[in-house]
Amino acid sequence: MNKEVGIGMIGYQFMGKAHSHAYRDLPFYFDSKLTPVLKVISGRNESAVAEAAEKMGWQSYETDWRKVIERDDIEIVDIVTPNHTHAEIAIAAAEAGKHIITEKPLALTLDEAKRMYEAVKKNKVKHMICHNYRFAPAVQFAKKLIDDGKIGRIYHFRANYLQDWIMDPDFPLVWRLKKEVSGSGALGDIGAHSIDLARFLVGEFDELVGTMETFIKQRPISEMSGGLSAKADKSQMGEVTVDDAVAFIAKFENGALGTFEASRFAGGNRNKNKIEINGEKGSIRWDMENMNNLEVYLASDEPGLQGFRLINCTEEIHPYAGAYWPPGHIIGYEHTFIHLIHEFLSGIAENYQPKPNFDDGVKNQQVLVAIERSTESKQWVKVGEMK
Amino acid sequence: MNKEVGIGMIGYQFMGKAHSHAYRDLPFYFDSKLTPVLKVISGRNESAVAEAAEKMGWQSYETDWRKVIERDDIEIVDIVTPNHTHAEIAIAAAEAGKHIITEKPLALTLDEAKRMYEAVKKNKVKHMICHNYRFAPAVQFAKKLIDDGKIGRIYHFRANYLQDWIMDPDFPLVWRLKKEVSGSGALGDIGAHSIDLARFLVGEFDELVGTMETFIKQRPISEMSGGLSAKADKSQMGEVTVDDAVAFIAKFENGALGTFEASRFAGGNRNKNKIEINGEKGSIRWDMENMNNLEVYLASDEPGLQGFRLINCTEEIHPYAGAYWPPGHIIGYEHTFIHLIHEFLSGIAENYQPKPNFDDGVKNQQVLVAIERSTESKQWVKVGEMK
Amino acid sequence: MNKEVGIGMIGYQFMGKAHSHAYRDLPFYFDSKLTPVLKVISGRNESAVAEAAEKMGWQSYETDWRKVIERDDIEIVDIVTPNHTHAEIAIAAAEAGKHIITEKPLALTLDEAKRMYEAVKKNKVKHMICHNYRFAPAVQFAKKLIDDGKIGRIYHFRANYLQDWIMDPDFPLVWRLKKEVSGSGALGDIGAHSIDLARFLVGEFDELVGTMETFIKQRPISEMSGGLSAKADKSQMGEVTVDDAVAFIAKFENGALGTFEASRFAGGNRNKNKIEINGEKGSIRWDMENMNNLEVYLASDEPGLQGFRLINCTEEIHPYAGAYWPPGHIIGYEHTFIHLIHEFLSGIAENYQPKPNFDDGVKNQQVLVAIERSTESKQWVKVGEMK
Amino acid sequence: MNKEVGIGMIGYQFMGKAHSHAYRDLPFYFDSKLTPVLKVISGRNESAVAEAAEKMGWQSYETDWRKVIERDDIEIVDIVTPNHTHAEIAIAAAEAGKHIITEKPLALTLDEAKRMYEAVKKNKVKHMICHNYRFAPAVQFAKKLIDDGKIGRIYHFRANYLQDWIMDPDFPLVWRLKKEVSGSGALGDIGAHSIDLARFLVGEFDELVGTMETFIKQRPISEMSGGLSAKADKSQMGEVTVDDAVAFIAKFENGALGTFEASRFAGGNRNKNKIEINGEKGSIRWDMENMNNLEVYLASDEPGLQGFRLINCTEEIHPYAGAYWPPGHIIGYEHTFIHLIHEFLSGIAENYQPKPNFDDGVKNQQVLVAIERSTESKQWVKVGEMK
Repeated sequence: MNKEVGIGMIGYQFMGKAHSHAYRDLPFYFDSKLTPVLKVISGRNESAVAEAAEKMGWQSYETDWRKVIERDDIEIVDIVTPNHTHAEIAIAAAEAGKHIITEKPLALTLDEAKRMYEAVKKNKVKHMICHNYRFAPAVQFAKKLIDDGKIGRIYHFRANYLQDWIMDPDFPLVWRLKKEVSGSGALGDIGAHSIDLARFLVGEFDELVGTMETFIKQRPISEMSGGLSAKADKSQMGEVTVDDAVAFIAKFENGALGTFEASRFAGGNRNKNKIEINGEKGSIRWDMENMNNLEVYLASDEPGLQGFRLINCTEEIHPYAGAYWPPGHIIGYEHTFIHLIHEFLSGIAENYQPKPNFDDGVKNQQVLVAIERSTESKQWVKVGEMK
Repeated sequence: MNKEVGIGMIGYQFMGKAHSHAYRDLPFYFDSKLTPVLKVISGRNESAVAEAAEKMGWQSYETDWRKVIERDDIEIVDIVTPNHTHAEIAIAAAEAGKHIITEKPLALTLDEAKRMYEAVKKNKVKHMICHNYRFAPAVQFAKKLIDDGKIGRIYHFRANYLQDWIMDPDFPLVWRLKKEVSGSGALGDIGAHSIDLARFLVGEFDELVGTMETFIKQRPISEMSGGLSAKADKSQMGEVTVDDAVAFIAKFENGALGTFEASRFAGGNRNKNKIEINGEKGSIRWDMENMNNLEVYLASDEPGLQGFRLINCTEEIHPYAGAYWPPGHIIGYEHTFIHLIHEFLSGIAENYQPKPNFDDGVKNQQVLVAIERSTESKQWVKVGEMK
Repeated sequence: MNKEVGIGMIGYQFMGKAHSHAYRDLPFYFDSKLTPVLKVISGRNESAVAEAAEKMGWQSYETDWRKVIERDDIEIVDIVTPNHTHAEIAIAAAEAGKHIITEKPLALTLDEAKRMYEAVKKNKVKHMICHNYRFAPAVQFAKKLIDDGKIGRIYHFRANYLQDWIMDPDFPLVWRLKKEVSGSGALGDIGAHSIDLARFLVGEFDELVGTMETFIKQRPISEMSGGLSAKADKSQMGEVTVDDAVAFIAKFENGALGTFEASRFAGGNRNKNKIEINGEKGSIRWDMENMNNLEVYLASDEPGLQGFRLINCTEEIHPYAGAYWPPGHIIGYEHTFIHLIHEFLSGIAENYQPKPNFDDGVKNQQVLVAIERSTESKQWVKVGEMK
Repeated sequence: MNKEVGIGMIGYQFMGKAHSHAYRDLPFYFDSKLTPVLKVISGRNESAVAEAAEKMGWQSYETDWRKVIERDDIEIVDIVTPNHTHAEIAIAAAEAGKHIITEKPLALTLDEAKRMYEAVKKNKVKHMICHNYRFAPAVQFAKKLIDDGKIGRIYHFRANYLQDWIMDPDFPLVWRLKKEVSGSGALGDIGAHSIDLARFLVGEFDELVGTMETFIKQRPISEMSGGLSAKADKSQMGEVTVDDAVAFIAKFENGALGTFEASRFAGGNRNKNKIEINGEKGSIRWDMENMNNLEVYLASDEPGLQGFRLINCTEEIHPYAGAYWPPGHIIGYEHTFIHLIHEFLSGIAENYQPKPNFDDGVKNQQVLVAIERSTESKQWVKVGEMK
């Protein structure tokens, strides 16, 4: 039997479900050195958190997150609350000596993000930020191809993260549409994922120029602040204070040219998180809606036989895939979280700092800030100069 | 807390893993009336079954399957052993009053299959056969479209189940390649799934003609009988006694024309389980390798705007999909088992006989037998006349 | 200036248009040794043929096809009339010493087909049958891959030729639905193309079993016998005497297993002429609806990087493609006819007998006959025994 | 017989071939009121132009373009020379009272472009610029859907025009890589096409920000200035003075957000000219590499049945498609030119000014200039302010 590790989760909605499932499911597929124990989950609404605890298999619940952090049997604090609460909770957890995993974006502001990173470094705890898409086997395999030199110098990175869930003007003003709670809209919610994939696969951003758009500026006020869906009261309208869509162009430190677009107004695209890379020796395409597939073009292929290969990344040779089923038997969204948490527990057990972590969160936040600044100034901005 | 139900599993390899996971994962996503408890798993190789038990979360293990059936705390017996053992175990389990779920094909012979069905009927236990592909949300949705009359009279059913895992002539003679253990090759292993999808979506078979092929007739004898992969000893060769591929044409009772092909020699197709239906009012296409998608053509669409729609069946309106993630966040192979077991537990809790069950298993076996007879006689055979 | 060659065409509808265009367009793209001159076109309806002649650029027209054959300035007779007239015209043309190109199927019966072949052999004229799909660059490239040994021993050939243009029960009884004019329905019209692709890419048929279906057995009588579209008179119904769909399984002389389906009742498939080949070393997929693309899987590809390559066959290295545009600028259906006629003129100029020719037509017809016999006898039949 | 119209062409390479073919092929498919007669073609290299004239069917040739313009029997002058010569030739042709069709981009500079437009207006001749992609049936159909209100308010336009033909660093310094001849690189050559599609489908540009990149800054000097391919002399290197890639973000006057990328460094993309539109009521996707297909999403589709429809735009209802073959029999790149010239001749015959014309050319050029200015200033620029 592996050593157990106590988990305390702050928050219990969409991401709480994804993380809870991952802790439960991980030991079935992977031989982690640490076995997660779902000790306690917290939320302010007692009946809701109690129901979530039972449904998702947590041993207990709390309505005050500080109680979670105080418990000695909790080694890992997992933060899945709305973005404006990340900093306070994470810093408190770090000071209590807990390892921390948090949802993205790291914080509302770059300053918060930096204080969070300072806190985890000072307290020598392990930390991760939940950019789960890195952990799709096809994306991990793409990274391997790049690291192995199969793609060569990268010329282009191209990312579209397209959704359509708020296109109805009657869709209510949920928390994700309020700047004071979420920090930004499409930018921080989904654009941040594209930024992470870019940093993972291409490298650091040098400079960028971009713009944020809000197509529907007023929406019915929602009865409840949470959730992706909520009932709307059409008699009362409130201001949408975040972006519906964002587009930006970037230059990477290694000279690659990046184009990015994130939108919640791209009808027919439920969750099209799509990237393309064009390099000197080859190209790569990936799309979350068919996440098991990776398309790879190799310029070294025999003339006449050149074309994108459609690779179903479900073979033992593909990262993480060997833990599951025979080739061609696909896995899904939830498995990206299993892999991320596997990496987190490995880092704790083997005493290394896994990635993506709070440092990545800070760097990601710098890009988010740079886009906001560029939108205001209508000029290119240097990402490294964002403070 | 829902009522618990004790599970005993006989067998522990590929399908044992898929079923075990489904029992564990089910309560997280679905509000089943019964909560499965993984009581005991059995296998003849003690160290292997002990390891499987720990890995997959079973409370105990046995090396004699009869011990499982004898236990009073076991209400459900799940049979995932090689095909030649299904009948004996299932009949014993039925006589012990256990509900039974078994892997497909139901049995080695039609006679065995019928005796199994007699046993479950006589003992009034619930029973299912594990044709899991029915339970992909996209397939369930296809069924709904057909039942709702959106497709109209069906003219064509077309199924290809293509794999490539034994194409290497050095691949060893595993149990799946021996008729006395598996009954048949591609036919019973994968063709049976296509037959089930046909029966589910189109209806009963009337008559058929077909042929079975064995391309590689001798293979190195394997050191171990089990598993999809095994080490081969090339100095000793044995006879492949099952089909590598099968093709057949069928007429359904409702007049539809079916074409089927199942092969383990279709390079590049890891697990392409693909169906197409053409009806009077519309057409449907589905492929397991992108199992979340359903392609639907509706002849009633406005002229000029007619074409196959690529539907990502991940919305709340799609069967089972609402239990998971927001639209566009795909699920995988393992979820088909969760849905099947959810249906099984619902049948037990609410006292109805779920489908597909042993009756379906018998009818499926009749088709398998008909194909073998047709291969021998080189003539069309009536499926209903198979005894 | 190249030597001119006089063309006389018998017939002027759909295929007349395709061939006429090819003669006109050929010299623009290819440096043929012979330059076709559109001398005369014939048809029984004077006003219609006169209009066609002007529209399509023929110098003159006739209402009696015998006049065409009598002319000394005609070296090539091109037969695009309904199937029941091919034999008489072709034999007369052969006896007049004309080179002949004819539409497929070669004839109504095997006997007719053989007499046609005898006539061209005896009179030492060049002859071709218009299986144009062979001449798509992607198909020619597939042939080259097979000939070069890239695919190895072929295990499977799989063909679907799916259309949907007669699904409406009110669609009238045009000539293509009358056995005495067309010989058969989907079988000879589109199935014959799949048979030709099989013979081209895989080899000769050994034996087969199949069935033909007519889903709509009566249709309104059409005012005019010709054309794909026609006005229907619903008050008078006539018998459909050909098949709406056909399915058959075949074994090739080289041991490959073939599955074929041709249907005019596959909604949403306008002209899906699709083939797949699985061999020992690789697989091939092609679909006329995206005819410039060839999908190729090579088992020798590096592990992890295996998958079907999507090859846009528009590069100079791809057969015929160099005559057109830069890579990625696709060509269409009509170009297959240009290539076929280019091959015909080359055969005449360089005195070799091009393929596919009347010998191929006879062999194709044998397969058609075998399918009809098998449908009647409900047994496998040997293709070579068809007389 | 329709009235004839004399054509004089200046230039004879890639685009000369495309236009020549279109004039020849047009009367076969379309009932144009004017029948083009290929009177004269001109080029400076006598042997090359003589060969081109014979190959492509021109009655005569000239080595001085002024001779073409002087001829009384020439009513239309078609300019397919390198970009730096367009202005002089077009202005001379306009003053000679010729109708003019010219390749894109209209000119090297905005000033030149405006003078060209002034000249055609003053001399009351018809004029077009050869943005042929507008004339793909699928694109025309997309335009119709937008005009019919099926897409609603447009939120997003997204264009990628990706090629890979100069990725090899040894590829020589052809004229398309020299600013003084071509004006720009990927920007004017392929980006201009995306800009035209945007203007056609979405509307006028308001402001934009972008950047141009040159990845390979020196290349071997080419022996000959023309053609897409040429022999390189590696001992002498010259400066690449145009962009290899360009990316820009734009806001349209109607509030839509556009993202654009054009590159000759996107390996595996031979000619991926791809657009996506997301509107209030629906979305559209199109890709030149499969130019017959249009993907359309309609938000009004029944819940559960929503998804992109893959429409093969080869039916009579689709613009221009009725002139060709039955549904599913695709057309290619060259047909876009036939449609454009059909429109040009219709404009002349019926005395209306077709589109896209020199006015579109000027507006397109304004966008090109805006991108160059934005690249220099690193700021957003107003397109309408470009002079």
